Amino acid sequence: MDIKSKIGIRIKELREQKDMSQKDLSFFSNIDRSYIASVENGQRNISIVNIEKVSIALGISLKEFFNNDKFDNDSRSC
Amino acid sequence: MDIKSKIGIRIKELREQKDMSQKDLSFFSNIDRSYIASVENGQRNISIVNIEKVSIALGISLKEFFNNDKFDNDSRSC
Repeated sequence: MDIKSKIGIRIKELREQKDMSQKDLSFFSNIDRSYIASVENGQRNISIVNIEKVSIALGISLKEFFNNDKFDNDSRSC
Repeated sequence: MDIKSKIGIRIKELREQKDMSQKDLSFFSNIDRSYIASVENGQRNISIVNIEKVSIALGISLKEFFNNDKFDNDSRSC
């Protein structure tokens, strides 16, 4: 799975854990909802500034955002 | 400190830990050396695809790349 897809899945799973809609995440991150939808679908090469905005809106640090098996080369889960 | 500067410092510290020059990192990541220099200087909003290329060239996972106090909101180190 490519990194754009991994990022999209991670944002979606965190957003759903927080019971937020794409519209909520758009509001709190000040990022367009259609852009968030395309990132979640793995279609966008999101920048670090926007990943930080999303993380802040989700209430987690970047360290926590990337603290996941998807981002660990040693993982055998994929 | 803004996220672009934090990313730049992190790349530089990891690169120096590995005894790599900017030219080495450029070669192994297939990213232009002048682009790497400007990222290290906090001047570029690097994308996740390029962060992954840099991490692979540095021999670490994205999880390890972000596993640092700079990316932890709870840190008092800054």
